[in-house]
Amino acid sequence: MAIPTQYPVIAIGGAEDKVGECTVLRSFFDSAGGTQATIGIVPCASQEPSVVGARYHRIFNAMGAQAVQVLDMQRPQECDEGRWLQLLDACTGIFLSGGDQIRLFDFIHGSTFITAIKERLRMGTLAVAGTSAGAAVMGEKMIAGGSSGESPNRSLVNLMDGLGIVPELLVDQHFHNRNRMARLLSAVAAHPDKLGMGLDEDTCAAFRGDGTFQVMGKGTVTIIDSGALTHTNYRFSDLTSPLSLHNLRVHILSEGDHYDYQRRRVGAPSLEVTS
Amino acid sequence: MAIPTQYPVIAIGGAEDKVGECTVLRSFFDSAGGTQATIGIVPCASQEPSVVGARYHRIFNAMGAQAVQVLDMQRPQECDEGRWLQLLDACTGIFLSGGDQIRLFDFIHGSTFITAIKERLRMGTLAVAGTSAGAAVMGEKMIAGGSSGESPNRSLVNLMDGLGIVPELLVDQHFHNRNRMARLLSAVAAHPDKLGMGLDEDTCAAFRGDGTFQVMGKGTVTIIDSGALTHTNYRFSDLTSPLSLHNLRVHILSEGDHYDYQRRRVGAPSLEVTS
Repeated sequence: MAIPTQYPVIAIGGAEDKVGECTVLRSFFDSAGGTQATIGIVPCASQEPSVVGARYHRIFNAMGAQAVQVLDMQRPQECDEGRWLQLLDACTGIFLSGGDQIRLFDFIHGSTFITAIKERLRMGTLAVAGTSAGAAVMGEKMIAGGSSGESPNRSLVNLMDGLGIVPELLVDQHFHNRNRMARLLSAVAAHPDKLGMGLDEDTCAAFRGDGTFQVMGKGTVTIIDSGALTHTNYRFSDLTSPLSLHNLRVHILSEGDHYDYQRRRVGAPSLEVTS
Repeated sequence: MAIPTQYPVIAIGGAEDKVGECTVLRSFFDSAGGTQATIGIVPCASQEPSVVGARYHRIFNAMGAQAVQVLDMQRPQECDEGRWLQLLDACTGIFLSGGDQIRLFDFIHGSTFITAIKERLRMGTLAVAGTSAGAAVMGEKMIAGGSSGESPNRSLVNLMDGLGIVPELLVDQHFHNRNRMARLLSAVAAHPDKLGMGLDEDTCAAFRGDGTFQVMGKGTVTIIDSGALTHTNYRFSDLTSPLSLHNLRVHILSEGDHYDYQRRRVGAPSLEVTS
């Protein structure tokens, strides 16, 4: 069952519209096949997986999906069980809910379940969306937590490995909403080879599968590219010293903007004709 | 009485240390002549000018200034009165307190008092420092107010004329502390010819008088340079639409870093030998 997915991966900044036009959730629904979609909801980032699972179940059902299932694993070890792989096989879309990204990572990483998801993405037969914690896990490195209200410094962010769905990225969410610029800058200072991506609420980066993504939704996507960095004091800084980062390239992207994250080039809607 | 001032202008991000080493306030004290300084405190940004004035009076007295005076104007019209100009004449340093930048602007702009301050700066016989509201007024354009917690958009920031002490700048304060990245970005989108400067608390940009400044204090100074901007939707955006800004150059500067704001070039401490 190969349904062409316009956006195989969608990273959402959290707090997406669930009652109005649902622009962001609908883009995932469409990419998963629309009325032909079988959607699997993975709510295990949440401490209340059944509540969260049921909420998204109602939403995708109301949109008219052919089938919606909540993959409500109870323990990390379960992810290797055949029943989840069988359910995944039937899915055209997987939705990773919000909650705690460490919990989500603990459930899924290293499992046959995530291996199968990545294989299906490679084959182009699956759409995967993640919101908040579900977006945070997408990079090879992940912001596991941190704080705000301070100048960029090493202690401001806790970094761990992520699921590596889009390895190039270092994702933060609820971005301008929760004052997370300083912590994303601190994360990029630790991993300057990664591309910092700050997702605002009700906003998503919709990846096309060709190394580019497009922005949709109410807010902005902030890109921090340290590819031309000329100086940082990161290595020589103690945990709480303010960081220096010279010559960052930063893009503020809004609805319709697109970005080539492999070539690190940005484009506006009007320049979008060919690629 | 010509006392050479190392840093004729110092812009402070607010909440500077007033009880410990007072690094930031001491740099102003030294630039005003140290124990030979006559310091004039202008507290009129504050709704409690006598309280604020007295606090800084105690601090600079304790540091050992030769004389400290509070220039406690009660009404905007007063600024043209000769008595304030006479007090200013005797000063080697003027300190602009925090409070409301609109109030400070209303008191001082267009007066013989600010004209005299600028003339003394040109002659190199005065040091001027401003904290919080006192820093906000430094540019030709000023962030008069705004909000936070949203994506960059036109409604996020109220812009007015500033006092133009360093015309090239568009200053924001309490920067990472109060989630002001989005509002400074919105301000820069409105005035892309200006250099966005975000000052963290207990941190300052100390201007040398040669077109460069140096960073001192506990946090960072963020510079947003839109000189290489390739696209913005600012003109075509309504008030609350998210903004696009492609190819901003951003620098996070910390203690010892310096920046040439006329040539728009950044330097690290180790590169600082000659200029």
